[in-house]
Amino acid sequence: MDSFGFRILARDGRARSAILQTPHGEVATPVFMPVGTQATVKATTPEQLREAGVSLLLANTYHLYLRPGDEIVAELGGLHSFMGWDRAILTDSGGYQVFSMRSIREVDGDGVTFKSHLDGSTHRLTPEKAVAIQERLGADIIMALDECAAPNDRAYSRLAMERTHAWATRSARAHRRTDQALFGIVQGGIFQDLREESAQYISGLGLPGNAVGGLSVGESKPEMHAVLDWMDQGLPVDRPRYLMGVGTPADIIEAVARGMDMFDCVLPTRLARHHAAMLRRGRLNLLGAGFARDPRPLDPSCPCYACRHFSRAYLRHLMQTKEILGATLLSIHNITVLETLTVEIREAIQTERFSELREEFRKETPVPDPSSCTG
Amino acid sequence: MDSFGFRILARDGRARSAILQTPHGEVATPVFMPVGTQATVKATTPEQLREAGVSLLLANTYHLYLRPGDEIVAELGGLHSFMGWDRAILTDSGGYQVFSMRSIREVDGDGVTFKSHLDGSTHRLTPEKAVAIQERLGADIIMALDECAAPNDRAYSRLAMERTHAWATRSARAHRRTDQALFGIVQGGIFQDLREESAQYISGLGLPGNAVGGLSVGESKPEMHAVLDWMDQGLPVDRPRYLMGVGTPADIIEAVARGMDMFDCVLPTRLARHHAAMLRRGRLNLLGAGFARDPRPLDPSCPCYACRHFSRAYLRHLMQTKEILGATLLSIHNITVLETLTVEIREAIQTERFSELREEFRKETPVPDPSSCTG
Repeated sequence: MDSFGFRILARDGRARSAILQTPHGEVATPVFMPVGTQATVKATTPEQLREAGVSLLLANTYHLYLRPGDEIVAELGGLHSFMGWDRAILTDSGGYQVFSMRSIREVDGDGVTFKSHLDGSTHRLTPEKAVAIQERLGADIIMALDECAAPNDRAYSRLAMERTHAWATRSARAHRRTDQALFGIVQGGIFQDLREESAQYISGLGLPGNAVGGLSVGESKPEMHAVLDWMDQGLPVDRPRYLMGVGTPADIIEAVARGMDMFDCVLPTRLARHHAAMLRRGRLNLLGAGFARDPRPLDPSCPCYACRHFSRAYLRHLMQTKEILGATLLSIHNITVLETLTVEIREAIQTERFSELREEFRKETPVPDPSSCTG
Repeated sequence: MDSFGFRILARDGRARSAILQTPHGEVATPVFMPVGTQATVKATTPEQLREAGVSLLLANTYHLYLRPGDEIVAELGGLHSFMGWDRAILTDSGGYQVFSMRSIREVDGDGVTFKSHLDGSTHRLTPEKAVAIQERLGADIIMALDECAAPNDRAYSRLAMERTHAWATRSARAHRRTDQALFGIVQGGIFQDLREESAQYISGLGLPGNAVGGLSVGESKPEMHAVLDWMDQGLPVDRPRYLMGVGTPADIIEAVARGMDMFDCVLPTRLARHHAAMLRRGRLNLLGAGFARDPRPLDPSCPCYACRHFSRAYLRHLMQTKEILGATLLSIHNITVLETLTVEIREAIQTERFSELREEFRKETPVPDPSSCTG
């Protein structure tokens, strides 16, 4: 575990700015990870991701296990080599995808049996197997198999939490690679006692990092914020804290304010494929006729390749003609928006101006007027 | 016309290596132009095209006239500014696309009336209008409206040729912008007398460049080569010669051997979207199961971004999962193959080894074995 470390550089309230050391470089936190579901962050090259400031990305174990298969990835030197990405990678356990497919999986105390969405073939995922697959994929950070319940269902939340705990213990026992950090995941829905119990259990495993699962799955913002407040109390301060599946600029800021360090979301790349450019606050739908003659970049203050070289009018043309370059440029831009935001957050924490930054984002998010919004 | 020039650096047989001076930089010929139909070379950024060695690209007047409209492009500073490409651009006249749609156009001596493939609206293209649209688009090189007949139909070939001549004269009269070069187009099907008459007529207009149209549209290779031999006789040696719609490495080499300088084709980007990687000779279909564990690059000698960073196994994975990055990487590779080929051709001409290079390509093109082909 020498290749890992977590060094807090500064605090501002409960927000922290830190360096997460990995075998593939230092990751400054708070950090946003774009999602490379199938070992590619959709529509972008690794070179474009580097330029956008990405230092850590997420890949999906479920998808890579099914195709091309973790053994093939291992044969080709592991995920970094396979996808041409020499910075850090985190893989999820595969559980989230499996549990999302209610109709084609059956869970028991030992693991989960599911059918492939590709060909209907039957597969079995256990904590040990999720670790073994992730060891073959070879990411820097891997996740213990967990079960994510509907956040308001107390009985199911307890059951899923208890399984998650047993599975985390088994995952920790099964994990062998010393050049990978295994993170445990806290569950427990929106229930304080469960969340506190879960944080205590997962923390007790002494893993190099801890994640908060089961959020951003339908609960309200106040509910999410309450859970994060309990997490800040319950999780060790000297280890990175990863809030899974979040999100928007405002959600990231509020989670950082509650001591969270790591974030992932498909939002920037998914929005890009649906004609939407993220702004620091708000969005632009590029199909809007108001952009047809708009010579301005998406955001004049954005340093990304798309904003340096192309007008909204050109981007709208690419959207209208369904050209691939449109998805590429919006993906680069949207990822850059979130990476730039985390740079800003880290600087604000280091200079004790984080509460000002937070205040700015707590004002109501403006609905941009396509013809006048300057980002 | 001071911003244009054509300076022959070396000859080897009838092949020539030259510099075509344009307002957007020098273009070394023989040159291959990738096609940016809708003001984007599909699936690539301008940055990737620069890196692939592209110095001149083609955009389609028909498509840009319909969407976003030449007036919008002009308002946004012209095509270079619109698409973020600061090297040279050539636009076609729009005629080729219009004449391809037999069912929805009517041609007369004055021009052609057609229906938009997008919304069925009726439009009229005349030589003067094709020039006006291209002046608004603002490419470095623009083309006179021509009519492309079925290559074996003598009566239609004569009629189309005569219209093409009249339209070229009208185009030359209509053309005003001195920072654009207007090229005329020779027609005449596969008929020697018509081709010779056409070359004489078009040459007589004294335009800064001449193109050969009506080839690569169904005629045999010997027929194409015969036409090119007549063109080499009939067209002025001191002006660039553009063979429209060609093509493959072998076709380019044979045309260079007959004194042609400029080439365009959708092949590299179209193949890329259909899982095919071009090799210097032959192709690889990346969906082949034989590539699933192949750690080699597409071509170990290729300098492109895809070959420097990714294995055939990864590219196959991207094809299988229909990821956009697959089309991007294969497009970069395929364009690089043709750009690299023209570098090689120019060097061969300059060192009087062109006939050796040609000989190599005249050998039968190998059918690659997916498991053993090393390109």
